[in-house]
Amino acid sequence: MHAIKITEPGGPDVLRWTEVPDPEPGPGEVLIDIVASAVNRADLMQRQGFYPPPPGAPEYPGLECSGRIAALGPGVEGWNVGDEVCALLAGGGYAEKVAVSAGQLLPVPEGVSLAEAAGLPEVYCTVWSNVFAIGRLAPGDTFLVHGGAGGIGTAAIQLAAAYGARVFCTASPAKHPRCLALGAERAIDYHSEDFVDVVKSATGGKGADVILDNMGAKYLERNVATLATNGRLIVIGMQGGMQGEVNLGALLSKRASITATSLRARPAEEKAEIVADVKTHVWPLLEFGKIRPVIDRAIALPDAAEAHRVLESGDATGKVLLVN
Amino acid sequence: MHAIKITEPGGPDVLRWTEVPDPEPGPGEVLIDIVASAVNRADLMQRQGFYPPPPGAPEYPGLECSGRIAALGPGVEGWNVGDEVCALLAGGGYAEKVAVSAGQLLPVPEGVSLAEAAGLPEVYCTVWSNVFAIGRLAPGDTFLVHGGAGGIGTAAIQLAAAYGARVFCTASPAKHPRCLALGAERAIDYHSEDFVDVVKSATGGKGADVILDNMGAKYLERNVATLATNGRLIVIGMQGGMQGEVNLGALLSKRASITATSLRARPAEEKAEIVADVKTHVWPLLEFGKIRPVIDRAIALPDAAEAHRVLESGDATGKVLLVN
Repeated sequence: MHAIKITEPGGPDVLRWTEVPDPEPGPGEVLIDIVASAVNRADLMQRQGFYPPPPGAPEYPGLECSGRIAALGPGVEGWNVGDEVCALLAGGGYAEKVAVSAGQLLPVPEGVSLAEAAGLPEVYCTVWSNVFAIGRLAPGDTFLVHGGAGGIGTAAIQLAAAYGARVFCTASPAKHPRCLALGAERAIDYHSEDFVDVVKSATGGKGADVILDNMGAKYLERNVATLATNGRLIVIGMQGGMQGEVNLGALLSKRASITATSLRARPAEEKAEIVADVKTHVWPLLEFGKIRPVIDRAIALPDAAEAHRVLESGDATGKVLLVN
Repeated sequence: MHAIKITEPGGPDVLRWTEVPDPEPGPGEVLIDIVASAVNRADLMQRQGFYPPPPGAPEYPGLECSGRIAALGPGVEGWNVGDEVCALLAGGGYAEKVAVSAGQLLPVPEGVSLAEAAGLPEVYCTVWSNVFAIGRLAPGDTFLVHGGAGGIGTAAIQLAAAYGARVFCTASPAKHPRCLALGAERAIDYHSEDFVDVVKSATGGKGADVILDNMGAKYLERNVATLATNGRLIVIGMQGGMQGEVNLGALLSKRASITATSLRARPAEEKAEIVADVKTHVWPLLEFGKIRPVIDRAIALPDAAEAHRVLESGDATGKVLLVN
């Protein structure tokens, strides 16, 4: 088969479409003929050499894909060769085939195309496990997501709004109409507005019950300032640095928490639990059309470098797909 | 009645035994004839002017007491005049009488004297709500508590050990034998040893699943370094400062959380829930003798200044009681 190899750490041009050995499905795994994959910010870090694949994961980038099951490894039940699926991967999505644990497979939701489905697993597993499982977002809660127009952001806005939360997001002004259309009550221009003030004044001084953050250190103190009593800040990205300052007195006076997580390094059993929860709680909303995949564009897999340039430019709204 | 008034913010001598009006039990409250109260570190901060009582709380210090019910306010059920009780207070324990919501009452556990019971509510409500409710400490987990010989520390060691956790604590060397006798597997001298190294090497590099911290900023980075994957750091004191540094990358690579909480400012309903949980989960262990009150000494209430000096000296092991 062919896959995108990272020839050396560096810019987008280090991604090279290369002939490589086919993967083999091990016990409990299936082999997927990949129809589409999707780009995640973690792929950019992996390309730069900052985010190596966890032990046992494929060396090629790509944290999600869709396609058809080509073969079953020993002990797989409930799936058949030819089934159309999408999957959460620990790597290897930028390829023609990938082997993945059956616990990380999801059916393609009715009404969603097979290619579009490639952009669903990573964002909805991330949003569900962080905003709902850890953050315990409840109807009527106030939710703030940074990077509202990105893949995670567009999924988080839709899912939080579908569950009856009040949704605020930060995004560049050109993308505000899209964020509002997806269910945000208010989109905040992070250049000209202070998100602390906007969220506090819109909630009568109360603040946000849950914040999903991709900026890390840069927003840490202001995120804590934005939290409501019993608020939960969940950091899933470090685009604004890792080493942050926090006023524990402010955190204590709110009885609030800061959690930082990632999905990729979790053990297969935890991923399977998250995938099962997403199938139960998110897939019906996709099938009823309450939430929709948000696709910026699709690019041929051999041109993965171009897809990385698009994500790095900050111009994309929603997911950038890679198609075979 | 008499109560200890804080005449002005300052040292122990600003505490003055003074004649004041009797409190009246409001709806849902009982009036307690206080037999004993106990000193908490928060009382020292209140005396210095740093920790004012929350709105509606009595102005006198004292976050817990024991005694006999002297009168019932309107609508109180399940309690009778003359019942021996202990109670979690938002203030007012340094007095001859106090009015408190019936939801914050606990019976005196069998085998515990009425005076000793004064030292139970604050420590066990704090330990339960933080280590178990928020920290979800489970049998076999590794638990680290700082200040192991203090009131919270001696309670946390006993309760965590009774629930089957591996318990580590920091304490000054003279107090190590007592910490070990209470159930700690290892007491760490914070002057001469590095708790990160001790906990990591005793757990094969894994670290602590739950840390209960009273030092705040000073220990923040080392506490994060000590956490295991999925670890929970819970900060309940700031004896080492409030403004801390945290490496969110380290937190993320462990999928770990930092929570900071206090008990006093919580609404009455939350306190009542915690008190009910403590009655269910902790009181039977006291009645079976699996855990015991740890009392350093008892001092007459008019001499509260002396009790504050004892706590400030760092010499106390367990609780300092104040008796009428």
